[in-house]
Amino acid sequence: MLLTGALFGCGRIAHKFADDIQTIPGAGISAVATRSLQKARFFAKAYNAPKALDSYEALLGVKGLDAIYIATPHVLHAENAIMCLNTKIPVLCEKPLAMNSREVSQMIASAEANNTFLMEALWTRFMPPINKVLKLIAAGEIGELISVNADFGFAANFNPEGLLFDPALGGGSLLDIGIYPVFLALLLFGKPEHIEASAIPGSTNVDSSCDMRLKFPGDKIALLHSTILSDTKTEAFIFGSKGHIHIHSRWHEMTSLSLHLNETDEVWHFDKDESCRGYRFEAEEVMTCIENGKIGSDAMPHDFSTLLIETLDRIRHKAGIIYSVD
Amino acid sequence: MLLTGALFGCGRIAHKFADDIQTIPGAGISAVATRSLQKARFFAKAYNAPKALDSYEALLGVKGLDAIYIATPHVLHAENAIMCLNTKIPVLCEKPLAMNSREVSQMIASAEANNTFLMEALWTRFMPPINKVLKLIAAGEIGELISVNADFGFAANFNPEGLLFDPALGGGSLLDIGIYPVFLALLLFGKPEHIEASAIPGSTNVDSSCDMRLKFPGDKIALLHSTILSDTKTEAFIFGSKGHIHIHSRWHEMTSLSLHLNETDEVWHFDKDESCRGYRFEAEEVMTCIENGKIGSDAMPHDFSTLLIETLDRIRHKAGIIYSVD
Repeated sequence: MLLTGALFGCGRIAHKFADDIQTIPGAGISAVATRSLQKARFFAKAYNAPKALDSYEALLGVKGLDAIYIATPHVLHAENAIMCLNTKIPVLCEKPLAMNSREVSQMIASAEANNTFLMEALWTRFMPPINKVLKLIAAGEIGELISVNADFGFAANFNPEGLLFDPALGGGSLLDIGIYPVFLALLLFGKPEHIEASAIPGSTNVDSSCDMRLKFPGDKIALLHSTILSDTKTEAFIFGSKGHIHIHSRWHEMTSLSLHLNETDEVWHFDKDESCRGYRFEAEEVMTCIENGKIGSDAMPHDFSTLLIETLDRIRHKAGIIYSVD
Repeated sequence: MLLTGALFGCGRIAHKFADDIQTIPGAGISAVATRSLQKARFFAKAYNAPKALDSYEALLGVKGLDAIYIATPHVLHAENAIMCLNTKIPVLCEKPLAMNSREVSQMIASAEANNTFLMEALWTRFMPPINKVLKLIAAGEIGELISVNADFGFAANFNPEGLLFDPALGGGSLLDIGIYPVFLALLLFGKPEHIEASAIPGSTNVDSSCDMRLKFPGDKIALLHSTILSDTKTEAFIFGSKGHIHIHSRWHEMTSLSLHLNETDEVWHFDKDESCRGYRFEAEEVMTCIENGKIGSDAMPHDFSTLLIETLDRIRHKAGIIYSVD
């Protein structure tokens, strides 16, 4: 299939995604829309997109779009996605799918009502090594799963009006990067039965850090951390009764991982695909799903996005992280 | 003062400690005792100790000992320390001071009854950079303290009869290395009011990993982790309302640390003292305390060792880590 996509927003993540689209044979970007026409034109030129627009509404009128990739600030995801879905344009929407579970349920209802594809762009889920991780676990290589430790932290440049720091844009560590460790825990363990969480409030009133301990059925535990204050190791460990998997730093990019079996030193490494930034895999999943007439992805189904945002809501409730849209 | 000390045990930690004793002017090791006379002789020769003995009882009869350093397996600490204290020989005892709070209270009672010095050899407490950390915090540099994240993990070589793996010797990650992150949290926040913890049991029935979340008065949080399964980051972060302190890997050795103030990039580094392994500082504290006729150290007082072991007991209770001495 030829994917002729469009983009809402053209920030850093949109640039990275567009880079990767160029590596997919037959795929291309036909249009980009953002509020600044200058930025849209710059972006369109960089990625050979015929149309640069300064209105999201105008983008919906572009003919022949196979899908729209939404890379606007978190607070706009629900509104943007529902606009697209109501126009029956398939949507790949950046994570978090929306600000809270109310918004996500509206988006999924819209996808269903319009019989139109919707998927959360949680790119880590589509990196080839994560399938290796899941296969190793399913094959019983590390025995029964026991716990997950994962963090994501980097020292963000402080900018009170930036995406990471402005509460009006949905800033904060949890929704932007804490979502990765939470995603991994839910992917492996399902729905948490008990959550402890706390946040460090920053000067702009978003969470600078979030510390989480999730308890799952069978006493499985996830110890998770996110911060935009400091460069932490950003590693993940999946512990089982017979061994553990170490996803090396920075783990969400799945650059490499190793399998450690108890009482032996067997270690496997899986290197990163150097031909792309890693966003290609989620784009290919979108292409395949749309080609097959699906409204959701089996790898990142609507139910999982619902579980993810509901868990983030529960963590936020415990940690006192509140947004005006709540 | 001239410290003429003796050692109980001559394993890896004893070698490191003895190395550092050589760097203190006027200090020396006059005797070493361990169950293998061959090992004792090897050790004594390496560190110019006149006496090598294969019985702890015989060591107590050596004349002119200023102090005994106890580096036997954890399960022997209480018995060894009380032997020394009852002979009125001052004691520096490796961490954990003993297996549980019952044993620690017996040791402290013995120190008091014999008016003889006792201190837990938690060397990190005596590294010069930790005083810098405490001064920065006391000066309000990072504002009000909010949370601590610290871990300690390394891939231990599996040996079912080794100190780390044999439950009869007090093996497991928590008591051996998890004690460091717990120590840091208690040093900064005092007594935890609520503890969540879980452990990964290993094939020898000691905890391979321990995940902890400690809640302190004022909603201060410590997210802590220990493991003997994998080389983790082994970093510590102390977060405050105005900034944070990052103690770099491996943090318990205090190789360097940096101060990060919110919204600025000011960073300070404190390099390790290369002239010693870092055990010299605790030895010097012992010398000063004994010289001043104290029975405990102000930096690592009996009350703190009591709080530490009581907290470890509480963590073990939550995580289901049980020893035969309990």
